[in-house]
Amino acid sequence: MINEQMPKSRFSRVRGIAFAGDLETDTALFQCLDLIHHEIKVLKLGNALLYRYGFKLLDSLKNRYAELPVIIDIKLCDVAHIASRVAKDFAERGADVVVVAAICGPVVIKEIVKAVPSSCEIWVFSEFTHDSGYINSRTADESIIAALESGAKGVQAPGTRTHRVEEIREDVGENIAIMACGIGAQGARFGSAIKAGANFEIIGRSIYGQFSPLDPVREARRDIVNAEREYFRNEL
Amino acid sequence: MINEQMPKSRFSRVRGIAFAGDLETDTALFQCLDLIHHEIKVLKLGNALLYRYGFKLLDSLKNRYAELPVIIDIKLCDVAHIASRVAKDFAERGADVVVVAAICGPVVIKEIVKAVPSSCEIWVFSEFTHDSGYINSRTADESIIAALESGAKGVQAPGTRTHRVEEIREDVGENIAIMACGIGAQGARFGSAIKAGANFEIIGRSIYGQFSPLDPVREARRDIVNAEREYFRNEL
Repeated sequence: MINEQMPKSRFSRVRGIAFAGDLETDTALFQCLDLIHHEIKVLKLGNALLYRYGFKLLDSLKNRYAELPVIIDIKLCDVAHIASRVAKDFAERGADVVVVAAICGPVVIKEIVKAVPSSCEIWVFSEFTHDSGYINSRTADESIIAALESGAKGVQAPGTRTHRVEEIREDVGENIAIMACGIGAQGARFGSAIKAGANFEIIGRSIYGQFSPLDPVREARRDIVNAEREYFRNEL
Repeated sequence: MINEQMPKSRFSRVRGIAFAGDLETDTALFQCLDLIHHEIKVLKLGNALLYRYGFKLLDSLKNRYAELPVIIDIKLCDVAHIASRVAKDFAERGADVVVVAAICGPVVIKEIVKAVPSSCEIWVFSEFTHDSGYINSRTADESIIAALESGAKGVQAPGTRTHRVEEIREDVGENIAIMACGIGAQGARFGSAIKAGANFEIIGRSIYGQFSPLDPVREARRDIVNAEREYFRNEL
């Protein structure tokens, strides 16, 4: 795969925390974000709150934290006419990224990319952090390449398997954003995926699950800064 | 696979239309349903409207059409702790079925089934109607069996490929509900999937896309009644 042909994500030089804001209610999310939004690079909104509140949650967040990019991590696995409608709706309300399941294949992903304004990037979810899912690494790799060739600009990778983050970074080059899940509560150490080449570590429960979320978020941020230095030192 | 061990869906003896209510707004959906709700067997709500309105759409529908079962067709493709939270939330608000992507695998599906009250069934989406997706028929079959063994009671099958509906019915027996997508706008004729063994044909655009939705819905219903007779005649 020729990296120069790949589209470039506007997050390709960014390193930091993607905060998984899967709290119980919108109020709890706002309270937590009021404390920590300066410590994180992006907010990742997932299915739990999005199905509860719909679009109006994104509206409120964009009003309250205008500078904070929002990743709509819904791992959309749907037919083209529904998936592109959903992505377009979120994009038009200010979503910076919408995450789609790579197994949908290139035809669906092309249609989604075409449907959204250029302010919104499409990233793909390619494989699970758990072992019992039905997407193996070979299918994941094939589906990632097909997705990037269809205009996707980022990949969600399993941070619990740092060798996969390394392999995917090797494959996709430096223009593509990689967001690693499974950091913290699912077992991977802060900084481990950044050291392997990821742009973002998705951290949720180990921040919002603490009495004082500022402590773990600052700890994670420090570890990520160190891991970033180490990654680029190894690259040179 | 031993059919008698499979859980039994309460829809296993029902045949009819699963209306895909993917209209532009909730008002448009209500206007259409006011006309046709006596002609359909279940309402299938998809991602387009659910992300727009969130749970309150389900509340309004359950208030207005108390007798009409609602299938939450979101093809959830997520980690266990998020997927089970979403399914539980919908189930507690009256969802009769929540559709999950079978590729999530048995561990996630078991957790989802455990999370929802028994009033709500979990069905699985196993493969796309389009050819460019990354789920082949072998993976689909494996993931269906694993899902049913984990407590799922229904399968969404590609109605555009009637041989797949036949194969899946053969595999899963008569206790499991099969809902076939791709009928009408995507090319399959009314009744064709029922004749192949499906319980429900998902029909959307060819009903709500017409000036008078009552004509196509009645035509589809007639064709389905004939196809049902033919299926059971062949079975005897």
